[in-house]
Amino acid sequence: MKKVSIPKGTRDFLPLQARRRSYIFQTIKEVFELFGFAPIETPATENESTLTGKYGEEGDQLMFKVLKRGDKLKSAVEQGKGFSDLALRYDLTVPFARFVVQHQSELTFPFKRYQIQPVWRADRPQKGRYREFYQCDVDVIGSEALISEVELLSIIDQVFEKLGLSGVRIKLNNRKILAGIAQKIGAEDKFTALTVNLDKLDKIGKEKVGEELEKAGFQQVQISTLFDLLSLSGSAQQRLEALAEKLQGIEIAEKGIEELKEVMRLSAQQNVRGLELDLTLARGLNYYTGAIIEVVHDQFNSSICGGGRYDNLTEVFGLKDVSGVGISFGADRIYDLMENENLFPYELESTTKVLFVNFGPSEAAFSLSLASKLRASGISCEVYAEPAKLKKQFAYANTLNIPFVVSIGSNEMQAQKAVLKNMYSGKQTTVHVEQIIEHIV
Amino acid sequence: MKKVSIPKGTRDFLPLQARRRSYIFQTIKEVFELFGFAPIETPATENESTLTGKYGEEGDQLMFKVLKRGDKLKSAVEQGKGFSDLALRYDLTVPFARFVVQHQSELTFPFKRYQIQPVWRADRPQKGRYREFYQCDVDVIGSEALISEVELLSIIDQVFEKLGLSGVRIKLNNRKILAGIAQKIGAEDKFTALTVNLDKLDKIGKEKVGEELEKAGFQQVQISTLFDLLSLSGSAQQRLEALAEKLQGIEIAEKGIEELKEVMRLSAQQNVRGLELDLTLARGLNYYTGAIIEVVHDQFNSSICGGGRYDNLTEVFGLKDVSGVGISFGADRIYDLMENENLFPYELESTTKVLFVNFGPSEAAFSLSLASKLRASGISCEVYAEPAKLKKQFAYANTLNIPFVVSIGSNEMQAQKAVLKNMYSGKQTTVHVEQIIEHIV
Repeated sequence: MKKVSIPKGTRDFLPLQARRRSYIFQTIKEVFELFGFAPIETPATENESTLTGKYGEEGDQLMFKVLKRGDKLKSAVEQGKGFSDLALRYDLTVPFARFVVQHQSELTFPFKRYQIQPVWRADRPQKGRYREFYQCDVDVIGSEALISEVELLSIIDQVFEKLGLSGVRIKLNNRKILAGIAQKIGAEDKFTALTVNLDKLDKIGKEKVGEELEKAGFQQVQISTLFDLLSLSGSAQQRLEALAEKLQGIEIAEKGIEELKEVMRLSAQQNVRGLELDLTLARGLNYYTGAIIEVVHDQFNSSICGGGRYDNLTEVFGLKDVSGVGISFGADRIYDLMENENLFPYELESTTKVLFVNFGPSEAAFSLSLASKLRASGISCEVYAEPAKLKKQFAYANTLNIPFVVSIGSNEMQAQKAVLKNMYSGKQTTVHVEQIIEHIV
Repeated sequence: MKKVSIPKGTRDFLPLQARRRSYIFQTIKEVFELFGFAPIETPATENESTLTGKYGEEGDQLMFKVLKRGDKLKSAVEQGKGFSDLALRYDLTVPFARFVVQHQSELTFPFKRYQIQPVWRADRPQKGRYREFYQCDVDVIGSEALISEVELLSIIDQVFEKLGLSGVRIKLNNRKILAGIAQKIGAEDKFTALTVNLDKLDKIGKEKVGEELEKAGFQQVQISTLFDLLSLSGSAQQRLEALAEKLQGIEIAEKGIEELKEVMRLSAQQNVRGLELDLTLARGLNYYTGAIIEVVHDQFNSSICGGGRYDNLTEVFGLKDVSGVGISFGADRIYDLMENENLFPYELESTTKVLFVNFGPSEAAFSLSLASKLRASGISCEVYAEPAKLKKQFAYANTLNIPFVVSIGSNEMQAQKAVLKNMYSGKQTTVHVEQIIEHIV
């Protein structure tokens, strides 16, 4: 018999991990809903044509495609046509754009939706990178109002507050400013090269980025002006004022600076913590057109949340001029970070709160009835399935981190008593069976 | 531009549907946890070899397989090898068996787990049958104790009670009795034909089942004895006694009858409602060896939950003699039934509870601060993104079924007042801004 295994880059989640993951998803979901975002779901598979060509050549290569079935596969092989007709979702953004276009007549705009579902990428597996992982996306589509940016920044602040993760820094910039800078240095035609390389600044440093830009055809004077503009010092307010002066007359830059100021002003009013202006933040993705957001933590080397404003997400599916703004939380990265920082609540250690020892058929039947009462009060409990040795039953409670064990033998049964053991303190008390609940809450 | 669409047999879920689905999953999950079952998750894809051959020829044909990628695909095509290496999960049972074998040293037995995840089958789409749908499975593995059967029956009772679905009938039988009957009529060698055809009794009737059994090689006398044994009348207790007499000396039948009696006795003690002995219940699947369970509702033509005890689920992956018992809830069918019966709570109609009208920048900023306070009290709310016409903003609240709209214009702002409109009653009241919360809870 071959050893059983799962596909490369995928994971099984055992109970403790599954409870912790569910805690993260639930927290994120609750915050999304507090801000009036509604859930949607899309299928795991999309028609292959919906996804191909949307993520560049690399994305197409990393996409998991689904084999045609039956006669369709046969004729595809005979006629040398493509073997696949469907593909597994590569992210939630393109399916969301497809969803908005397909259901536009059923939706009310501005449409505020969230979506928490897995995506699949045949990436080379490595630490913290998986072939199946969850994205938690939240977007407002169909409005240009900056209130939406402020809502999303508040959501970020509240999610990490509720998760108990401090030290989060929310980096904010605006692609219109970067576009204005490109204009200022006469490099509008190389805007993609500019943003893609700026994005690497954190990782490879200023010098290397300069070299890369040179390779991409930038002149030395352009590069040095660029770095001068990006390395202004002072408070956010001061830097924005200085930048406004240097980029005066460049309309798009002025608009970007105004937007940034307004978002920062309203966010301050909303007490959003950890917000930082980062003029070097670029976010490589081409579809961003306004605010861009990235959330980092000093104890982690990748961003744990990010997003921004876009103007043409749905155009590729035939719906033009729909502006939107959205962010995506990286649940797997947040999980790793929370585990490192030891932030998961202790209640997640066990599903069961009370184990009833099984002393035999009649005692077990008695305990089953008590268990029903506890459950009616919302207390998770179970009666050990078999009248096994006491040592085995207590070991079960121990291994599963069950906090309370209740023993009711035949004597206790007759006296309507229960021996209640607190498994953390080791303390044991005898109580009336009607009083178990008050002793464990 | 081609019209966008999703793969045949799959579905998008809009907010109302998504909230209702989430309500069903959450209810089921809460009950599972009250009984001490812990969550696990497995990946959507399994190695193809893990799944193939486990569901019969038909299952293999209905499985979605994932195309090999890059060089692997190239060499598969050149060498005429299989084009796929992975397959999408076809159910949760086989992945669970694989999980138990793979992680046996990390698990504590009896292992009580639940799993709520989608599965994929390339079935011919038809009403109520989809190519992507959720299963909600709950199993105890590693114990033969009948307490587990009773727990599962209590879970069924509580899930449907919490969902508000009355009229549920839980049909119960035991495969050992059917095996005893096969022995009695001398048809042990045709046991699969017996159970597969008995399973159709509800749909095609006694006469047709008789014909099918004849085709399968049963003699008339075997068929008539079979139906005599299965059509005993009286209470469950009476029928079991009568059956015990007729099958006296057939050890496996006697054991089955004893098990059934014990499970029914304990379930009655636990106040499980709607439990019915159904000696004709067979459940075609070969792996069941003890109790079998199927839940039906008069207003629906398929079962909404089912399962049973098995002895050898993990053997195919090399782990022998591990007994277990489990059931699976059909969330999609429960959804359809609840929609037909109009059972979803009204709160699911909207995510947002309060909409603040947007009268312009300074009023909106004021409302944003109030919205923060409401959220701190757990109330979902939003400020309309743009200072649009009042009519449009109220229409937005109306369409989204938002129950309360708060209007704070510049006069109200100065007086610290808010105009609160109950969108259901149409009633409007003016309250102090600090009193909004008490008026909407």
